[in-house]
Amino acid sequence: MITIPRHPQVFIVSAPSGAGKTTLCDKLYAEFPDFFYTITSTTRAPREGEVDGKNYYFLTHELFQKKLAEGEFLEHAIVHGNLYGSPKTPVIRALKEGRDVLMNLDVQGAAAVREYARRAAPDDPMHHEVVDIFVVPPSLEVLRNRLVRRGKDTEETIAKRLKQAENEIARWKEYKYMVVNDDLAEAYDNLRAIILAERHRIRPEGRGSS
Amino acid sequence: MITIPRHPQVFIVSAPSGAGKTTLCDKLYAEFPDFFYTITSTTRAPREGEVDGKNYYFLTHELFQKKLAEGEFLEHAIVHGNLYGSPKTPVIRALKEGRDVLMNLDVQGAAAVREYARRAAPDDPMHHEVVDIFVVPPSLEVLRNRLVRRGKDTEETIAKRLKQAENEIARWKEYKYMVVNDDLAEAYDNLRAIILAERHRIRPEGRGSS
Repeated sequence: MITIPRHPQVFIVSAPSGAGKTTLCDKLYAEFPDFFYTITSTTRAPREGEVDGKNYYFLTHELFQKKLAEGEFLEHAIVHGNLYGSPKTPVIRALKEGRDVLMNLDVQGAAAVREYARRAAPDDPMHHEVVDIFVVPPSLEVLRNRLVRRGKDTEETIAKRLKQAENEIARWKEYKYMVVNDDLAEAYDNLRAIILAERHRIRPEGRGSS
Repeated sequence: MITIPRHPQVFIVSAPSGAGKTTLCDKLYAEFPDFFYTITSTTRAPREGEVDGKNYYFLTHELFQKKLAEGEFLEHAIVHGNLYGSPKTPVIRALKEGRDVLMNLDVQGAAAVREYARRAAPDDPMHHEVVDIFVVPPSLEVLRNRLVRRGKDTEETIAKRLKQAENEIARWKEYKYMVVNDDLAEAYDNLRAIILAERHRIRPEGRGSS
Protein backbone atom coordinates (compact mmCIF):
# COMPACT_ATOMS: atom_id res chain seq x y z
CA MET A 1 0.00 0.00 0.00
CA ILE A 2 1.16 3.51 -0.84
CA THR A 3 0.79 5.88 2.11
CA ILE A 4 1.89 9.39 2.88
CA PRO A 5 4.61 9.49 5.51
CA ARG A 6 3.60 12.08 8.05
CA HIS A 7 4.21 13.45 11.49
CA PRO A 8 1.30 14.07 13.80
CA GLN A 9 0.51 17.77 13.85
CA VAL A 10 -0.89 20.37 16.19
CA PHE A 11 -3.82 22.25 14.68
CA ILE A 12 -4.78 25.49 16.38
CA VAL A 13 -8.17 27.06 15.77
CA SER A 14 -8.21 30.61 16.98
CA ALA A 15 -10.65 33.50 16.64
CA PRO A 16 -11.82 36.76 18.14
CA SER A 17 -14.74 36.37 20.54
CA GLY A 18 -18.02 35.95 18.63
CA ALA A 19 -16.50 34.65 15.40
CA GLY A 20 -18.10 31.23 15.84
CA LYS A 21 -15.02 29.27 16.90
CA THR A 22 -16.76 27.03 19.44
CA THR A 23 -19.52 25.98 17.01
CA LEU A 24 -16.90 25.19 14.36
CA CYS A 25 -14.76 23.20 16.80
CA ASP A 26 -17.78 21.20 17.94
CA LYS A 27 -18.35 20.21 14.32
CA LEU A 28 -14.70 19.18 14.04
CA TYR A 29 -15.04 17.02 17.19
CA ALA A 30 -17.93 15.21 15.50
CA GLU A 31 -16.15 14.61 12.18
CA PHE A 32 -12.63 13.87 13.43
CA PRO A 33 -12.87 11.66 16.52
CA ASP A 34 -9.27 10.55 15.94
CA PHE A 35 -7.98 13.96 17.04
CA PHE A 36 -6.74 14.60 20.53
CA TYR A 37 -8.65 17.63 21.81
CA THR A 38 -6.85 19.58 24.48
CA ILE A 39 -8.59 20.60 27.69
CA THR A 40 -7.68 23.86 29.38
CA SER A 41 -6.68 23.98 33.05
CA THR A 42 -8.15 26.78 35.14
CA THR A 43 -8.27 28.10 38.68
CA ARG A 44 -11.79 29.46 38.28
CA ALA A 45 -14.64 27.65 40.04
CA PRO A 46 -16.69 25.18 37.98
CA ARG A 47 -19.98 26.57 36.72
CA GLU A 48 -23.18 24.56 36.98
CA GLY A 49 -22.94 21.45 34.81
CA GLU A 50 -19.20 21.75 34.12
CA VAL A 51 -17.28 18.52 34.58
CA ASP A 52 -13.64 18.32 35.68
CA GLY A 53 -11.57 16.64 32.96
CA LYS A 54 -14.23 17.30 30.36
CA ASN A 55 -14.91 21.05 30.18
CA TYR A 56 -11.78 22.04 32.10
CA TYR A 57 -9.25 20.70 34.52
CA PHE A 58 -10.16 22.60 37.66
CA LEU A 59 -7.03 23.27 39.69
CA THR A 60 -6.34 25.14 42.91
CA HIS A 61 -4.35 28.32 42.52
CA GLU A 62 -1.48 26.62 44.31
CA LEU A 63 -1.39 23.58 42.05
CA PHE A 64 -1.65 25.76 38.93
CA GLN A 65 1.31 27.85 40.08
CA LYS A 66 3.32 24.70 40.83
CA LYS A 67 2.66 23.29 37.36
CA LEU A 68 3.41 26.66 35.81
CA ALA A 69 6.78 26.78 37.57
CA GLU A 70 7.50 23.26 36.27
CA GLY A 71 6.94 24.44 32.69
CA GLU A 72 3.80 22.35 32.32
CA PHE A 73 1.83 24.94 30.31
CA LEU A 74 2.27 25.54 26.61
CA GLU A 75 0.59 28.88 27.16
CA HIS A 76 -1.22 30.54 30.04
CA ALA A 77 -3.11 33.73 30.78
CA ILE A 78 -4.91 35.56 33.56
CA VAL A 79 -8.51 36.50 32.82
CA HIS A 80 -10.54 38.35 35.44
CA GLY A 81 -8.08 37.19 38.10
CA ASN A 82 -8.33 33.51 37.16
CA LEU A 83 -5.49 31.52 35.63
CA TYR A 84 -5.99 29.50 32.44
CA GLY A 85 -3.42 27.29 30.75
CA SER A 86 -2.94 24.53 28.15
CA PRO A 87 -1.22 21.51 29.73
CA LYS A 88 1.78 20.24 27.81
CA THR A 89 2.04 16.61 28.95
CA PRO A 90 -1.17 15.29 27.29
CA VAL A 91 -0.29 17.05 24.01
CA ILE A 92 3.21 15.55 23.90
CA ARG A 93 1.81 12.13 24.79
CA ALA A 94 -0.81 12.31 22.03
CA LEU A 95 1.78 13.37 19.43
CA LYS A 96 4.09 10.54 20.50
CA GLU A 97 1.17 8.13 20.03
CA GLY A 98 0.87 9.47 16.48
CA ARG A 99 -2.34 11.43 17.01
CA ASP A 100 -3.06 14.89 15.63
CA VAL A 101 -3.93 17.47 18.26
CA LEU A 102 -6.57 20.19 18.06
CA MET A 103 -6.28 23.24 20.28
CA ASN A 104 -9.00 25.86 20.56
CA LEU A 105 -7.15 29.02 21.63
CA ASP A 106 -7.52 32.76 21.75
CA VAL A 107 -5.13 34.93 19.74
CA GLN A 108 -2.64 35.34 22.60
CA GLY A 109 -2.67 31.61 23.33
CA ALA A 110 -2.14 30.77 19.66
CA ALA A 111 0.85 33.11 19.51
CA ALA A 112 2.35 31.50 22.62
CA VAL A 113 1.95 27.92 21.32
CA ARG A 114 3.33 28.92 17.90
CA GLU A 115 6.34 30.40 19.65
CA TYR A 116 6.76 27.29 21.79
CA ALA A 117 6.79 25.12 18.66
CA ARG A 118 9.26 27.44 16.94
CA ARG A 119 11.71 27.13 19.84
CA ALA A 120 11.09 23.43 20.52
CA ALA A 121 14.13 21.14 20.36
CA PRO A 122 14.30 18.71 17.40
CA ASP A 123 13.44 15.78 19.69
CA ASP A 124 10.30 17.55 20.98
CA PRO A 125 7.31 16.28 18.94
CA MET A 126 6.13 19.89 18.78
CA HIS A 127 9.25 20.75 16.81
CA HIS A 128 7.16 19.89 13.80
CA GLU A 129 4.95 22.66 12.66
CA VAL A 130 1.79 23.83 14.26
CA VAL A 131 -0.92 24.57 11.74
CA ASP A 132 -2.71 27.66 12.96
CA ILE A 133 -6.06 28.67 11.51
CA PHE A 134 -7.63 32.05 12.17
CA VAL A 135 -11.42 32.22 12.05
CA VAL A 136 -12.69 35.75 11.52
CA PRO A 137 -16.13 37.33 11.18
CA PRO A 138 -16.97 38.74 7.73
CA SER A 139 -16.76 42.27 9.17
CA LEU A 140 -16.73 44.11 12.51
CA GLU A 141 -20.28 45.24 11.73
CA VAL A 142 -21.46 41.62 11.49
CA LEU A 143 -19.59 40.76 14.69
CA ARG A 144 -21.28 43.69 16.44
CA ASN A 145 -24.70 42.46 15.30
CA ARG A 146 -23.94 38.94 16.50
CA LEU A 147 -22.87 40.15 19.94
CA VAL A 148 -25.96 42.36 20.22
CA ARG A 149 -28.26 39.52 19.12
CA ARG A 150 -26.65 37.15 21.63
CA GLY A 151 -27.92 39.55 24.33
CA LYS A 152 -25.31 38.49 26.90
CA ASP A 153 -23.28 41.69 27.06
CA THR A 154 -23.89 45.33 27.97
CA GLU A 155 -23.26 47.97 25.33
CA GLU A 156 -20.02 48.87 27.06
CA THR A 157 -18.80 45.26 27.04
CA ILE A 158 -19.72 44.93 23.36
CA ALA A 159 -17.73 48.06 22.53
CA LYS A 160 -14.76 46.62 24.43
CA ARG A 161 -15.06 43.24 22.69
CA LEU A 162 -15.24 44.92 19.28
CA LYS A 163 -12.12 46.97 19.97
CA GLN A 164 -10.35 43.80 21.07
CA ALA A 165 -11.57 41.90 18.00
CA GLU A 166 -10.27 44.70 15.78
CA ASN A 167 -6.83 44.49 17.39
CA GLU A 168 -6.84 40.69 17.11
CA ILE A 169 -7.94 40.63 13.48
CA ALA A 170 -5.02 42.96 12.70
CA ARG A 171 -2.76 40.01 13.63
CA TRP A 172 -4.03 37.76 10.81
CA LYS A 173 -0.62 37.66 9.14
CA GLU A 174 0.75 35.60 12.03
CA TYR A 175 -1.43 32.69 10.93
CA LYS A 176 -0.95 30.09 8.26
CA TYR A 177 -4.62 29.98 7.22
CA MET A 178 -7.60 32.28 7.55
CA VAL A 179 -11.26 31.32 7.25
CA VAL A 180 -13.98 33.97 7.09
CA ASN A 181 -17.07 32.76 8.94
CA ASP A 182 -19.91 34.34 6.99
CA ASP A 183 -21.95 31.23 6.18
CA LEU A 184 -21.35 28.57 8.85
CA ALA A 185 -21.57 25.55 6.52
CA GLU A 186 -19.12 27.13 4.09
CA ALA A 187 -16.73 28.15 6.87
CA TYR A 188 -16.80 24.61 8.22
CA ASP A 189 -16.18 23.14 4.76
CA ASN A 190 -13.09 25.33 4.47
CA LEU A 191 -11.90 24.50 7.98
CA ARG A 192 -12.12 20.75 7.43
CA ALA A 193 -10.49 21.19 4.02
CA ILE A 194 -7.44 22.72 5.69
CA ILE A 195 -7.17 19.71 7.98
CA LEU A 196 -7.59 17.20 5.14
CA ALA A 197 -5.10 19.08 2.96
CA GLU A 198 -2.46 19.27 5.68
CA ARG A 199 -2.81 15.53 6.17
CA HIS A 200 -1.94 15.06 2.49
CA ARG A 201 0.93 17.49 2.43
CA ILE A 202 4.40 16.17 1.72
CA ARG A 203 6.89 17.70 4.10
CA PRO A 204 10.40 18.19 2.80
CA GLU A 205 12.56 16.24 5.21
CA GLY A 206 14.67 18.25 7.57
CA ARG A 207 12.67 21.40 7.03
CA GLY A 208 10.11 20.68 9.71
CA SER A 209 7.88 23.63 9.12
CA SER A 210 6.53 24.77 5.72
CA MET B 1 -15.44 42.95 4.49
CA ILE B 2 -12.47 40.90 5.63
CA THR B 3 -10.92 38.97 2.76
CA ILE B 4 -7.78 36.94 2.31
CA PRO B 5 -5.27 38.67 0.06
CA ARG B 6 -4.09 36.14 -2.48
CA HIS B 7 -2.35 35.60 -5.77
CA PRO B 8 -3.92 33.40 -8.40
CA GLN B 9 -2.22 30.02 -8.38
CA VAL B 10 -1.37 27.22 -10.76
CA PHE B 11 -2.65 23.86 -9.54
CA ILE B 12 -1.15 20.81 -11.20
CA VAL B 13 -2.85 17.45 -10.96
CA SER B 14 -0.53 14.70 -12.00
CA ALA B 15 -0.62 10.91 -11.84
CA PRO B 16 0.68 7.71 -13.32
CA SER B 17 -1.50 6.31 -16.10
CA GLY B 18 -4.53 4.50 -14.64
CA ALA B 19 -4.58 6.30 -11.29
CA GLY B 20 -7.90 7.99 -12.10
CA LYS B 21 -6.61 11.49 -12.84
CA THR B 22 -9.03 12.27 -15.68
CA THR B 23 -12.11 11.26 -13.68
CA LEU B 24 -10.94 13.39 -10.75
CA CYS B 25 -10.20 16.38 -12.99
CA ASP B 26 -13.64 16.10 -14.59
CA LYS B 27 -15.16 16.37 -11.12
CA LEU B 28 -13.03 19.43 -10.43
CA TYR B 29 -14.22 21.05 -13.68
CA ALA B 30 -17.80 20.59 -12.47
CA GLU B 31 -17.23 22.01 -8.98
CA PHE B 32 -14.83 24.84 -9.81
CA PRO B 33 -16.01 26.55 -12.99
CA ASP B 34 -13.99 29.65 -12.02
CA PHE B 35 -10.74 27.83 -12.79
CA PHE B 36 -8.92 28.26 -16.08
CA TYR B 37 -8.34 24.76 -17.45
CA THR B 38 -5.40 24.49 -19.78
CA ILE B 39 -5.69 22.76 -23.13
CA THR B 40 -2.74 20.86 -24.56
CA SER B 41 -1.40 21.57 -28.04
CA THR B 42 -0.52 18.56 -30.18
CA THR B 43 0.67 17.64 -33.64
CA ARG B 44 -1.22 14.37 -33.66
CA ALA B 45 -4.31 14.06 -35.85
CA PRO B 46 -7.71 14.61 -34.19
CA ARG B 47 -9.56 11.40 -33.31
CA GLU B 48 -13.22 10.98 -34.06
CA GLY B 49 -15.26 13.48 -32.05
CA GLU B 50 -12.30 15.53 -30.85
CA VAL B 51 -12.77 19.28 -31.19
CA ASP B 52 -9.96 21.78 -31.82
CA GLY B 53 -9.76 24.25 -28.94
CA LYS B 54 -11.73 21.96 -26.66
CA ASN B 55 -9.95 18.60 -26.43
CA TYR B 56 -6.66 19.85 -27.86
CA TYR B 57 -5.22 22.60 -29.97
CA PHE B 58 -4.33 20.69 -33.13
CA LEU B 59 -1.24 22.22 -34.71
CA THR B 60 0.86 21.35 -37.72
CA HIS B 61 4.32 20.09 -36.93
CA GLU B 62 5.72 23.29 -38.43
CA LEU B 63 3.61 25.62 -36.30
CA PHE B 64 4.34 23.61 -33.14
CA GLN B 65 8.09 23.88 -33.81
CA LYS B 66 7.79 27.61 -34.43
CA LYS B 67 5.93 28.15 -31.14
CA LEU B 68 8.41 25.91 -29.36
CA ALA B 69 11.31 28.01 -30.67
CA GLU B 70 9.50 31.13 -29.45
CA GLY B 71 9.33 29.71 -25.91
CA GLU B 72 5.56 29.35 -26.05
CA PHE B 73 5.40 26.02 -24.21
CA LEU B 74 5.62 25.65 -20.45
CA GLU B 75 6.48 22.01 -21.06
CA HIS B 76 6.51 19.73 -24.06
CA ALA B 77 7.14 16.09 -24.88
CA ILE B 78 7.25 13.68 -27.79
CA VAL B 79 4.96 10.65 -27.48
CA HIS B 80 4.88 8.07 -30.27
CA GLY B 81 6.42 10.63 -32.64
CA ASN B 82 3.81 13.32 -31.90
CA LEU B 83 4.55 16.56 -30.10
CA TYR B 84 2.50 17.66 -27.10
CA GLY B 85 2.87 20.90 -25.19
CA SER B 86 1.17 23.24 -22.70
CA PRO B 87 0.82 26.75 -24.17
CA LYS B 88 2.10 29.53 -21.93
CA THR B 89 0.16 32.58 -23.20
CA PRO B 90 -3.33 31.54 -22.02
CA VAL B 91 -1.98 30.54 -18.58
CA ILE B 92 -0.23 33.90 -18.09
CA ARG B 93 -3.33 35.74 -19.30
CA ALA B 94 -5.60 33.83 -16.88
CA LEU B 95 -3.26 34.50 -13.94
CA LYS B 96 -3.12 38.20 -14.83
CA GLU B 97 -6.93 38.23 -14.84
CA GLY B 98 -6.78 36.83 -11.31
CA ARG B 99 -7.96 33.32 -12.16
CA ASP B 100 -6.54 30.13 -10.74
CA VAL B 101 -5.26 27.67 -13.33
CA LEU B 102 -5.62 23.90 -13.34
CA MET B 103 -3.20 21.80 -15.37
CA ASN B 104 -3.63 18.08 -15.87
CA LEU B 105 -0.10 16.83 -16.55
CA ASP B 106 1.96 13.68 -16.55
CA VAL B 107 4.89 13.39 -14.15
CA GLN B 108 7.44 14.75 -16.65
CA GLY B 109 5.18 17.67 -17.55
CA ALA B 110 4.60 18.50 -13.89
CA ALA B 111 8.35 18.52 -13.26
CA ALA B 112 8.91 20.86 -16.23
CA VAL B 113 6.20 23.34 -15.15
CA ARG B 114 7.42 23.28 -11.55
CA GLU B 115 10.91 24.06 -12.81
CA TYR B 116 9.57 26.85 -15.04
CA ALA B 117 7.83 28.45 -12.02
CA ARG B 118 10.96 28.10 -9.90
CA ARG B 119 13.02 30.00 -12.46
CA ALA B 120 10.33 32.53 -13.39
CA ALA B 121 11.23 36.20 -12.94
CA PRO B 122 9.44 38.07 -10.11
CA ASP B 123 7.24 39.93 -12.61
CA ASP B 124 6.11 36.65 -14.20
CA PRO B 125 2.75 35.67 -12.62
CA MET B 126 4.08 32.11 -12.45
CA HIS B 127 6.77 33.31 -10.07
CA HIS B 128 4.24 32.54 -7.39
CA GLU B 129 4.14 28.94 -6.41
CA VAL B 130 2.60 26.13 -8.34
CA VAL B 131 0.66 23.73 -6.15
CA ASP B 132 1.35 20.26 -7.44
CA ILE B 133 -0.76 17.32 -6.39
CA PHE B 134 0.21 13.73 -7.10
CA VAL B 135 -2.62 11.23 -7.44
CA VAL B 136 -1.45 7.65 -6.92
CA PRO B 137 -3.16 4.27 -6.95
CA PRO B 138 -3.38 2.49 -3.57
CA SER B 139 -0.84 -0.06 -4.82
CA LEU B 140 0.75 -1.33 -8.02
CA GLU B 141 -1.38 -4.45 -7.66
CA VAL B 142 -4.58 -2.39 -7.74
CA LEU B 143 -3.26 -0.40 -10.71
CA ARG B 144 -2.53 -3.66 -12.53
CA ASN B 145 -6.08 -4.88 -11.90
CA ARG B 146 -7.53 -1.59 -13.14
CA LEU B 147 -5.50 -1.72 -16.35
CA VAL B 148 -6.48 -5.36 -16.94
CA ARG B 149 -10.17 -4.62 -16.29
CA ARG B 150 -10.08 -1.64 -18.65
CA GLY B 151 -9.23 -4.14 -21.38
CA LYS B 152 -7.54 -1.60 -23.64
CA ASP B 153 -3.97 -2.83 -23.39
CA THR B 154 -2.04 -5.98 -24.21
CA GLU B 155 -0.26 -7.78 -21.41
CA GLU B 156 3.04 -6.40 -22.68
CA THR B 157 1.73 -2.82 -22.63
CA ILE B 158 0.35 -3.33 -19.14
CA ALA B 159 3.72 -4.57 -17.93
CA LYS B 160 5.35 -1.51 -19.50
CA ARG B 161 2.81 0.85 -17.95
CA LEU B 162 3.29 -0.72 -14.52
CA LYS B 163 7.05 -0.37 -14.72
CA GLN B 164 6.59 3.27 -15.73
CA ALA B 165 4.07 3.84 -12.92
CA GLU B 166 6.51 2.38 -10.44
CA ASN B 167 9.24 4.77 -11.61
CA GLU B 168 6.85 7.70 -11.50
CA ILE B 169 5.49 6.91 -8.03
CA ALA B 170 9.08 6.89 -6.79
CA ARG B 171 9.12 10.63 -7.57
CA TRP B 172 6.37 11.46 -5.04
CA LYS B 173 8.71 13.61 -2.96
CA GLU B 174 8.87 16.20 -5.72
CA TYR B 175 5.23 17.05 -5.04
CA LYS B 176 3.63 19.27 -2.46
CA TYR B 177 0.61 17.00 -1.91
CA MET B 178 -0.20 13.35 -2.49
CA VAL B 179 -3.67 11.81 -2.72
CA VAL B 180 -4.13 8.05 -2.78
CA ASN B 181 -7.03 7.13 -5.05
CA ASP B 182 -8.49 4.05 -3.42
CA ASP B 183 -12.10 5.15 -3.02
CA LEU B 184 -12.95 7.72 -5.72
CA ALA B 185 -15.31 9.84 -3.56
CA GLU B 186 -12.75 10.03 -0.78
CA ALA B 187 -9.91 10.85 -3.18
CA TYR B 188 -12.00 13.63 -4.68
CA ASP B 189 -12.89 15.00 -1.24
CA ASN B 190 -9.18 15.21 -0.46
CA LEU B 191 -8.32 16.75 -3.83
CA ARG B 192 -10.90 19.51 -3.50
CA ALA B 193 -9.82 20.03 0.12
CA ILE B 194 -6.30 20.83 -1.08
CA ILE B 195 -7.66 23.46 -3.46
CA LEU B 196 -9.92 25.02 -0.80
CA ALA B 197 -7.12 25.01 1.76
CA GLU B 198 -4.60 26.62 -0.59
CA ARG B 199 -7.14 29.34 -1.28
CA HIS B 200 -7.23 30.08 2.46
CA ARG B 201 -3.51 29.99 3.00
CA ILE B 202 -1.76 33.16 4.08
CA ARG B 203 1.42 33.66 2.12
CA PRO B 204 4.24 35.41 3.90
CA GLU B 205 5.01 38.41 1.73
CA GLY B 206 8.17 38.30 -0.25
CA ARG B 207 8.50 34.57 0.15
CA GLY B 208 6.26 33.70 -2.78
CA SER B 209 6.50 29.98 -2.37
CA SER B 210 6.48 28.41 1.08
